Amino acid sequence: MSSSRLSLSRPTGPAASLDLLPPVGAAHLDVRRYSKARRNLLPRGDHVTAVSGTWALAQVLHSGAVVESALWCPAEPTTGRCGDEATWAAVAERAERAHRISGRTLARMHPGLTAPALVAVVRLPRWRPDDVFTEQAHLVLVADGIEYAGNLGTLVRTADACAADAVLLTSAVARVTHPKTFVASRGTVLTMPVVEYPTVAQAVADLAAAGFTAYVADPAGTTSYREAGLGSGRTAVVVGSEGEGVSPEWRSGLARVAIPMRGRADSLNVATSAAVLLFEARAALDHR
Amino acid sequence: MSSSRLSLSRPTGPAASLDLLPPVGAAHLDVRRYSKARRNLLPRGDHVTAVSGTWALAQVLHSGAVVESALWCPAEPTTGRCGDEATWAAVAERAERAHRISGRTLARMHPGLTAPALVAVVRLPRWRPDDVFTEQAHLVLVADGIEYAGNLGTLVRTADACAADAVLLTSAVARVTHPKTFVASRGTVLTMPVVEYPTVAQAVADLAAAGFTAYVADPAGTTSYREAGLGSGRTAVVVGSEGEGVSPEWRSGLARVAIPMRGRADSLNVATSAAVLLFEARAALDHR
Repeated sequence: MSSSRLSLSRPTGPAASLDLLPPVGAAHLDVRRYSKARRNLLPRGDHVTAVSGTWALAQVLHSGAVVESALWCPAEPTTGRCGDEATWAAVAERAERAHRISGRTLARMHPGLTAPALVAVVRLPRWRPDDVFTEQAHLVLVADGIEYAGNLGTLVRTADACAADAVLLTSAVARVTHPKTFVASRGTVLTMPVVEYPTVAQAVADLAAAGFTAYVADPAGTTSYREAGLGSGRTAVVVGSEGEGVSPEWRSGLARVAIPMRGRADSLNVATSAAVLLFEARAALDHR
Repeated sequence: MSSSRLSLSRPTGPAASLDLLPPVGAAHLDVRRYSKARRNLLPRGDHVTAVSGTWALAQVLHSGAVVESALWCPAEPTTGRCGDEATWAAVAERAERAHRISGRTLARMHPGLTAPALVAVVRLPRWRPDDVFTEQAHLVLVADGIEYAGNLGTLVRTADACAADAVLLTSAVARVTHPKTFVASRGTVLTMPVVEYPTVAQAVADLAAAGFTAYVADPAGTTSYREAGLGSGRTAVVVGSEGEGVSPEWRSGLARVAIPMRGRADSLNVATSAAVLLFEARAALDHR
């Protein structure tokens, strides 16, 4: 949004700047783009996600991520102002393009959301292996074939919490740009380096070249995770898909570690497994 | 289902026994009851859940849970038989009441599910504190104010995996009978003792009387979970709601342990926290 709009002789403050945004309809490209991003329908290469809700938008502001577009739907005259407008105005200010939309367009674009609201299309940072495999890197999570966006988001949130250096994705199914990934990650997808690999072989090679030992989570593994040496050096924790576990390419020739299943279930939720292994590695790395 | 039906001179095998079930319509009490159970709308005291899908029904069979009713929707003549019928017939055999329904009734009762299908209303076991606080009990999970059924189910699954003796619920919001709890628990709600307490004070008193030390997960706690003595004796891990954490009643006078947050997020997913603490306790208990 251009700053010239803010200088017009109108009521000042964030509310005023939002109200001056130019109106667009449901057919506008940015409206259609948000709608598609929200439903995870944009091409993978666009690498954008749909963000709504003040808390989530505040994470976007803090992260410095690029806001491709912001769409502001003002309150009906009867509903009055509310306290979120400072965040909304800041997001609109940051956006490459910002527009005003009607309540009807909002309802079409994002059913269930009610005015006043601001929503945005946000570009996630792109990370390359070179960004990740630095001299300082000691702990990475590899997530192979993850199917559910919610699980992927929880994995990223857990990697953030234990100060992992990156999350590597192989055979990715769920997308890091899925709005559910964003929510489950508590916005940490904005800052945690996530690198998507085209092949398992390439990820294995990069890890080996950087001096990482890969520990593959496998309920059928013979070594308990408490005795496997997680965190005794550069450590990659590898977890597999919800249905199938890690793919065969990850199993051959690498250390397979088990979290002993002591009850009736034959496995843990993938994000749970990752947490147990990552925090075990974190504790060991901290005490080296 | 009565065995007399099986003795009629008709094609034999599981398919035959299912086809002999008496037809009922959408207004039948058991159809409406399944429909309500599926949407988590039955009274809490009924303590039943809606189960669909062959894998889930097989868990019911293995657990010995009471099947209140089974509803069988045969395939259209064009779709033919399929391999799940042995499980379905066994569930119908086990059910207190079993009926046949049309594809139209199935679609109304459980949108998205297609024939052939068998669904059931299953009674979860009821557990009292006396069942839990035995001489052998050493590890329990307390879940306070959990809001989401999926998280509750993952908590139960994790408790099962580390051979916790029970899950205690205080200030319960999400229900253990929610179909999402069942799915996320991978059916372990059928076997893991879950006790719902009317007050925090009563749970605190029962734990103290049984010689348990309660360790309350709190990101603001000053003791790291690795140094708190989890698993040095009878251990209760207490985790709180997704939004608010543990309620104040759980915080006063009990050991508050933190999982250090090393990244940008201020907390972990509740099921993730529970897993890290429970497995820490499990490992210590195993090495005593």
